[in-house]
Amino acid sequence: MMINRPLILIVNDDGIDSYGIKVLTEAMREIGDVFVVAPNINRSGSSHSMTLHQDVFLEKIDKDFNYFTCSGTPVDCVKSAVNKILPRIPDLCVSGINHGSNHSINSLYSGTLHGAMEGTIQGIPSIAFSHLNYSEEISLTPFKMVIKRISLEVLKQGLSAGITLNVNFPNIDFKKIKGVKLCTQGKGIWTENFQLMKEEQNRKYYKITGTFRYDKNDVKTDSWALDNKLISIVPISINCTMPINFNELKYLEYDF
Amino acid sequence: MMINRPLILIVNDDGIDSYGIKVLTEAMREIGDVFVVAPNINRSGSSHSMTLHQDVFLEKIDKDFNYFTCSGTPVDCVKSAVNKILPRIPDLCVSGINHGSNHSINSLYSGTLHGAMEGTIQGIPSIAFSHLNYSEEISLTPFKMVIKRISLEVLKQGLSAGITLNVNFPNIDFKKIKGVKLCTQGKGIWTENFQLMKEEQNRKYYKITGTFRYDKNDVKTDSWALDNKLISIVPISINCTMPINFNELKYLEYDF
Repeated sequence: MMINRPLILIVNDDGIDSYGIKVLTEAMREIGDVFVVAPNINRSGSSHSMTLHQDVFLEKIDKDFNYFTCSGTPVDCVKSAVNKILPRIPDLCVSGINHGSNHSINSLYSGTLHGAMEGTIQGIPSIAFSHLNYSEEISLTPFKMVIKRISLEVLKQGLSAGITLNVNFPNIDFKKIKGVKLCTQGKGIWTENFQLMKEEQNRKYYKITGTFRYDKNDVKTDSWALDNKLISIVPISINCTMPINFNELKYLEYDF
Repeated sequence: MMINRPLILIVNDDGIDSYGIKVLTEAMREIGDVFVVAPNINRSGSSHSMTLHQDVFLEKIDKDFNYFTCSGTPVDCVKSAVNKILPRIPDLCVSGINHGSNHSINSLYSGTLHGAMEGTIQGIPSIAFSHLNYSEEISLTPFKMVIKRISLEVLKQGLSAGITLNVNFPNIDFKKIKGVKLCTQGKGIWTENFQLMKEEQNRKYYKITGTFRYDKNDVKTDSWALDNKLISIVPISINCTMPINFNELKYLEYDF
């Protein structure tokens, strides 16, 4: 499907003021008509969560440009965009550029990826972009070229129903990157550190931080690719069924 | 692996005071030593979200029993239990009983399921239980029998790494239920309703509600099973890679 001037929705989880979403917006304005709908605060780690127990506000924050902020999660942003902001279902939804890793197990925690996955649920071809560097100090400008190329390919070829693309950029100098690689999700785990901050009555307050470890050995995974100077793309499913031989769980079935 | 007196962690997303977690706790106390670590408020729809930008408190709320409340999400509860509360990695983690549907696409939004999935990430065989009725009025007592049977089977047989079981109970009289069926995740979608609650300066405040529709035709899915008087069990993966023929996305790869 060729589109002369595609309609593109941009979301993220770091919030409307982050550097990553500014670079992503610059890139997308070069290829389409853009609406930005992003959280008013940092919503990192919000996964596929929704705001169910309070109202959500929307605010247009630039009178000359379609720039909106939302008090909800990335998923709320996409639902709000589709229901209250966009003139029609967009041709593409892009999320990011996230400041920090969303490969391997971070696929579950990431608000950036799950904003894009909500786009997929809404029937929009959707892509999440993340850079492994957590700082806003490094330049993301060189990545605009890669982002545009992937986005234009997806606009042209489409994506199968139920697939979101999870793109991660390695934390090395852009000139050293070797290419773009299609991967599976690698294995990784966070080891948490609970730091006791205060005790009040019977409550102990903790600051939770963590150390991320991942398996670099499996050559088909995103973790391996990123460690080998490649940009990783993982096709992510909104269907969570384990692709398993059901026979090994047959013992769970019985008739009343 | 036979365990004389298994150690069982219980979590949920409806909060520590919900009726569902009380029934689940009763059932688990009949088969093991129980720790309950649950949110202090209703955390429905929290998916796999974590609390990253504020401290989380833990409080033991019963001096005679291992009953803890946590100000974070279900994922925070499981991480807190493993790191700060439990004497060792438990033999089983169960989540629920959720008041409301967690079949088909709700697998993504559910805090109940993702609490159990965090258990899986931590290396604990984990199961989520949900009842399709959203009310706390109906009796969940008859389901204790089913919950104990599934839990004992899993304690005996174990679960493969990376699999969480997502169990849903149909919204019919218990006596009419026909059995327990292993399923894939069905297709479903929420159609949102945005109700304008107030306008303040440039902000529009919305209450978001929704209507859930799902495909009842595919006989292998949880949605079909539940519609046909069966309890559904879906093996859910913490690896989100789409089980796809990678050739169809090869156009995305290139060398720099």
